[in-house]
Formats: sequence, structure tokens, C-alpha cells
Amino acid sequence: MKQVIQALGTKLAHDQISDNDTVRELHSKDETYQQTSLPDIVVFPKSTEDVTHIMEIAQEYQTPVTPFGVGTSLEGHVIPYKNGITIDFSLMNQILEIKEGDLLVRVQPGVTREQLNKELKKYGLFFTVDPGANATLGGMAATNASGTTTVKYGVMRDQVRDMEVVLADGSVIHTGNLAAKSASGYHLNGLFIGSEGTLGCFTELTLQVYGIPEHIVAARATFPSLTNAIEAVTSILHAGIPIARVEFVDEASVEQINKFSETNYPVKPTLFLEFHGNESGLQEDLAFSKEIMQDHGCDHFNSETDNAARNRLWDARHNLAYAYIHDYVGKKMMLTDVAVPISELANSVIYAGEELKKLAIPGGILGHVGDGNFHSLIMIDMENEEEVKKAKQFNEKVVQYALERGGTCTGEHGVGVGKKPYQRVEHGAALDVMTNIKKALDPNNILNPTKIVDIDNEDKL
Amino acid sequence: MKQVIQALGTKLAHDQISDNDTVRELHSKDETYQQTSLPDIVVFPKSTEDVTHIMEIAQEYQTPVTPFGVGTSLEGHVIPYKNGITIDFSLMNQILEIKEGDLLVRVQPGVTREQLNKELKKYGLFFTVDPGANATLGGMAATNASGTTTVKYGVMRDQVRDMEVVLADGSVIHTGNLAAKSASGYHLNGLFIGSEGTLGCFTELTLQVYGIPEHIVAARATFPSLTNAIEAVTSILHAGIPIARVEFVDEASVEQINKFSETNYPVKPTLFLEFHGNESGLQEDLAFSKEIMQDHGCDHFNSETDNAARNRLWDARHNLAYAYIHDYVGKKMMLTDVAVPISELANSVIYAGEELKKLAIPGGILGHVGDGNFHSLIMIDMENEEEVKKAKQFNEKVVQYALERGGTCTGEHGVGVGKKPYQRVEHGAALDVMTNIKKALDPNNILNPTKIVDIDNEDKL
Repeated sequence: MKQVIQALGTKLAHDQISDNDTVRELHSKDETYQQTSLPDIVVFPKSTEDVTHIMEIAQEYQTPVTPFGVGTSLEGHVIPYKNGITIDFSLMNQILEIKEGDLLVRVQPGVTREQLNKELKKYGLFFTVDPGANATLGGMAATNASGTTTVKYGVMRDQVRDMEVVLADGSVIHTGNLAAKSASGYHLNGLFIGSEGTLGCFTELTLQVYGIPEHIVAARATFPSLTNAIEAVTSILHAGIPIARVEFVDEASVEQINKFSETNYPVKPTLFLEFHGNESGLQEDLAFSKEIMQDHGCDHFNSETDNAARNRLWDARHNLAYAYIHDYVGKKMMLTDVAVPISELANSVIYAGEELKKLAIPGGILGHVGDGNFHSLIMIDMENEEEVKKAKQFNEKVVQYALERGGTCTGEHGVGVGKKPYQRVEHGAALDVMTNIKKALDPNNILNPTKIVDIDNEDKL
Repeated sequence: MKQVIQALGTKLAHDQISDNDTVRELHSKDETYQQTSLPDIVVFPKSTEDVTHIMEIAQEYQTPVTPFGVGTSLEGHVIPYKNGITIDFSLMNQILEIKEGDLLVRVQPGVTREQLNKELKKYGLFFTVDPGANATLGGMAATNASGTTTVKYGVMRDQVRDMEVVLADGSVIHTGNLAAKSASGYHLNGLFIGSEGTLGCFTELTLQVYGIPEHIVAARATFPSLTNAIEAVTSILHAGIPIARVEFVDEASVEQINKFSETNYPVKPTLFLEFHGNESGLQEDLAFSKEIMQDHGCDHFNSETDNAARNRLWDARHNLAYAYIHDYVGKKMMLTDVAVPISELANSVIYAGEELKKLAIPGGILGHVGDGNFHSLIMIDMENEEEVKKAKQFNEKVVQYALERGGTCTGEHGVGVGKKPYQRVEHGAALDVMTNIKKALDPNNILNPTKIVDIDNEDKL
């Protein structure tokens, strides 16, 4: 590793390279229960050229490279299980260009979503994708992140027009162009997004943004049972109402919200909703949705047009994972993340809820039910082997249930190492195609090894 | 080739294999000016198993394989320049399942979009993507087709949840799942869609469908100049109005429409528009759009809510290419297909219009301007070498103009052979990544060779 540090020193400034223990420790983990592992070196590139140099050196010395944003991933994506070099993109955090006339922005990968939205607000624009964490846009692209607005605006993959990517050999490509659509060549944008650092490092992203909607109404609706709430969502989707957000939060999670965000929401199965549009269209959507929810037993409905009140509601929702973490000091968070076809949603959530009860580990169910995606969040005592085992079995059961019904093991968090055991059963022979692509683009397997695919079974955890 | 026919005969019925001259001739061309080339054999599979057998035999005898829908492609995609086997999917034309509750349908690749929509109508559903031709859904997926509703609903790639694909070695994979979103593994759906038969043959598709909107208004607006019309579109997009269709048709093309469709539209630069939504929201969108268009000099605005009148308007638009073909018997159609960022749209269309005038070849400009995508359609006398040369130079100029402004050489028709000369300049080093993927998935280059990428420069046309 000395040689690698020496080689890096010929290309990067001294303060861009660190083998300090604290720095390494900070780059040994993400936000969940996955086992930690230290990088040998952490580097802080300031430019695409820096990244190219790093990749060339890594290739020369066959050193694993793991890209790192702010470490908010949830399946161990950024944990360097084969050690080597971690590339921390925090110094590449510039918003390079806001192309108002094209509704596009060009950013470096270390820009966070909140940083971008703060800047966009000055132009009356916003970036739609909002995972709970204030993640970097590079990380969000790497995991194909999504969030509460996905039901209307789509996932990360839908927002990216172009990326600059440094490949395993240090060469630099662009994966797309700036037009709204293209049928030119293979869809590299789509391939690299969600590749979790296993095919290349993103050094620049051009993203689609939207005008802040003229009219926004947020709402909260409570139901006598989980089943009622989820069935209401299914009916809203079937009615084709262009809802902008529809989030489910179970009773245990409402309690956590109330504690952490100092709200006073009734402790009942709850939907958080939002509507965007022109004034009259929105009122009609709102009224129709309310009617549908009442048909499904909604016992309390409360809507907010005021900006501050809306923000408070969504901050409460976004802080929910942290609310659990805050309340269970010393425990680690595990999240299931299945997504299922709409017709299977109600039964899947009921199934997960019942299994969660049996588990007797603290946790709750929440999620982006408009996309058929929900999380069972559980707080595990990692010292308690029995509990860890039970939690893993629970995860497996929920995934198995979803896969048997045409769903996916991960709707939005990505594979990392946590969902790798389910890749073969989910993808079948298609996993071999993925492996072949990985081998073609990273023949020495230096890009975030151990994630998504196994190369020659050598890196099974 | 005799051996190949013999081998095919052991797996397929006699009437599923043809080397008849008329059949081969029908599979030697598409709808445009590209040079024709005959397949040696045409096969008609009835099942995935049949396709697997065909691929295994093709692999064994190193015979090129070209998939064929109904031959409506526009860049020579289905023309077998290396001869070999053409797989005609017309017998795989079953709608396998309509999953109303999931807003999904499962179809075989030979189902056409009109066939699907006719069936979906019974359920109050529709499939959004509408290229001019009544193409097969397999072909539309292979070229990442789009059309007039893309501005609201997206391209083909946005509609596909899952595909069954037979790979070069005959193995069968699924590229996705049935959930609305997924972050599991590499995005094979996205990669295979738009791969134009070069990575595999699609044998089944699961597609997203929508409820037929409750309220639809179509409209026609005329403008004193092309510039006014295009700038009106740019303003509508900037205003964030969720318009469902916005098509530009120039004066020459309106004349063709009037002749072919027996309409009596004023011969002026025209926008055809459509709005979908709830009643009051739609009225507000319509009024706002009208106001914007009037600000841009709109001198005639006419809206239609009646179903028959709307259909007549859109049929006229969809038949425009045929109108030209019908009027210029013996000539061949060439289409530019660039897409550019919104801010470049007006200037790009003006530039193409001016170059088209200089050309003095019959044609017009039309297109899906809401996506920044437009076509210059020209009718070429293929016997006139000078005209062919001038037409190719024109195509090149328009593409060059778009690429210099961050656009793409093809918004929706795909690469085939017609847009292959622009792949290197558009994609740069990314073309090598595409080539590596092709080599990894089709090492013997038997899948639709000569299309999209050049393998070892051996198959340059």
C-alpha cells in the first residue's frame, strides 16, 4: 500500500490523501447494521483529472476502489470490504451550471440534494428526488435512489440526462446527452445509474429539474386499520389521480414521529399525501381523493396549503428513520425495501405487519406505497445473536413474499451487500448477463468489489 | 445455408421456414431509402422455445440473425446486410394477459400497438406510445420508439416493466420485474430496449398502461411563422403545463395532410395539441396555453372535445408520412430525427427549415417538439445521384447542428445503419463501452450485425 500512496502522491496534493485512522474509520461504515471494514487510504479528488489519476494508479496496483458520498447508504454500498482506496467526493461539491431555459442543472457528484434545492429555489425550480437522507447526488445516482415524489416524477434514473464517468482504466465517457429523449446507441445512462460504483465513478451529472408547482396541498389522513389505508392508496392509483406524494406510516412510526418531531399526530395508520397542479385541477384531485379515502374508512382528514405547515409535515416524515435511531441508542437499523405490483400491495404490507408483530423487535412499517414500495424498519441489538438471526430471517421472508408475486427485493435502497443474497433468485440467468457486463467493463474487478455481483465467487461475504 | 435449413427443419414445422423469393424480398427492406438486402431464410417462430432453437442453430452455424416485426423501421434496422436468418415475429402476436389491477399487460412481440389499444379499450385502458406506423411492440421496444404522447407519458423505455429475452446462445432471461420501481441489479430493461436486435430477441413484454383520461381536449393552433409556433411550445414547456401532446407541422406538411386526409386545415405553421386531465384542471391548462400561444402571435385556435373529431385530427397527423409517400410515387423517404435541448429548439428548427429550402427537394418539417424532437422529411429520387448526395449532406448538417448543441442524432427512430455514421461523434469513447457490451453478450456477432456498433470494423457498410 506504501507504493500506492507514493504513486498517488505524485498526482494529488498531500492533503488529498489520508491514511489517518479516524478518517479511515469514518469511511468504514454506512447508516445500517452491515459489518464495518476499513479502507487503507482515503483520497479526496478535486477534479475529473484527479479521479482519472486515481483510477490509473488503482488499475496499475490492482487496488480496489470504493466511491463515497456522505455515507448514507443503507445496504453497505460504501463499505470497502476488500479495503484499498476509498474515493471521497466531498471536495467535488460544486453546482456547475443552472440552465434555466432547459430545466437542467450540471453538478459535481458531491453536491447534496438539499444544497441543490437551496440554490434552485432562487430560480423557482426544484429537484424532485428526496430520499430521507441528505445524500449526495452522485450517491443517489449510484443507487438509483427515489423517494416520496417518485409516484409523480419518477426515480433518479428518470432525472439524469447525462453523466461524466471515469471508467476502470481511467478513461472518461459521457453516458447521455441534453435532449429530452434519445434512441441513439445503448442506454448507458440507465446502465450506470444504479451500478453502485461497480462500473465507474461519476464525476459530473446533468439532471432534469422542474418549476416549483404553482399550487401545492399536503394532507394527512388516518384510518382504522393498515388494510384500509393501503386499499385507499390502491384505489387512488387506479383512479389515475396524478398524486405527487402518498406515504404510509404505521402506528409505531407515528409515535416515533411525534416523539422526535414534537408533533401531535393521532397514533393511527396514516397516509401523508401531496397534490401539485393548477388551482382548480388540484382542488378536484383533492376532493376526489378525499372521497375515495372516505370510502375506505378514513376517519380524519387534514389538509395544509401553508408552506411552513407543509414543510413541517414532510420534515417529520423525512426524519422518521432518524427518529428511530435516536430513540434506540446503541441499536442498528435494518430495513426491508421490497416493491410489489399494485394489486399485491395491500396483502404484502399486511403480511409484513403480521411477521413484524411476531418478531417482537422494535420497528414499524412505512413507505412509498404509491410505488408499491414499503419498508419494515427494525432496530436490532447487534450483540444479541438470536435477534440478528431473527431479523435476517424476517428480511428474507418479506423479500421471498415479494419475489413470488413479481416484485423486487429492493425498490430504492439498492443491492450493496445486504440484498446480494437475493440477486440470483430475483434475476435468475439475467444475473449472468450482469456479471458479463461487469467483467467487460472492469476486467480486474477493482471497482467496488463485493457489491451487486460476485466475480468468480471469490468475493462472497 | 442448406445445413442451416436442415437443422431448423428438425426443430420447426415445415411452414415455419421459408426461402421463397417473395418472402425473402418482403424481408429485405424497411420504410425508407436504405439499400435493400435479402435474408437467406425467413423463419416464423410460434414460441420462446422456437426462438431458442433458432438461436442455438444460428450460433452453431455462425449465421447472422435479424429480428423482424412488420418492417416499419426507418433506418434500415431490419435489413439483413449480412443475410442469414430473419426471424419474423408475426405468429407471436398474442395478448397474453391484461392485469387490470396492476395497470400492466403482457404481450408477445408481434402484437401491434393498434391491436393492443383495440383490446385495452374494452377495459377503459390505453397504451401510450404511438409512432406514426402501426408497428409491433417488439419492434417499438427494440428501437425505443416514442411518439406524440411522449411529452407527457414518456418513451417506450418508460413503459416496459419486464421483457423475456432470448440471448445469442439461446438462453432465456427476464430483464425486469412487475414492481413500479426497482434498484436491484443493473438496469437490463433499459439496456435491451433500444438495442435494435443486437443483444437479444424479445419474446415477451410486460408493459405499463393507463386509464383512458376522463377528459381529453385536442386543439389546433396556427401561427404566422415557424418561429412563433416553436417559441410558443418553448413557453408552454417552461410554464410547466402538463400537456399531453404538442406537435409541429409546417406549411408543406399541412398541404400533404389536406390532400391525403381530405381535411381543410389552413396552410400555415401549425401546432396540434392535446390535454388530458380532470375537467376543471384541463380547462385551466387549456386557457393558459391559449393565452401563451396568443402572446406568440397565434392567429387561429380551434379545440375539439368530440371523440370522432379528435381521432380525425390525430389520424391526419399520424398519416403524414404516408401522405408524402402516397404523393411522391417512386421516391424514397429520408427523415432527420434530431432532438435538442429546449433552449435550442427554435433555432434548430429554423436552421433545418432554411437548409431544407436551399435543398429544393420536396419535403417538410414536423415533429414532437414538446420533446425537442423534430423531423425534416424529404422525398428522394434514388436514381438521381446528385439528389441523394444533397439529401445525405442535409441530414449530416442537421445532425451536426444538433450534436454541437448537446442534442442527439436520433430522438426516436434509432440508429440502424442510417445514424451509425454519427455514433462516434455523438458518443465519443462511450461508443467503445457499447462495443464492449455487444462483444460480451454476443461474442460471435450474430445478432443483427452491422447495426448500432461496428465489431472489429469488419462490418462497415
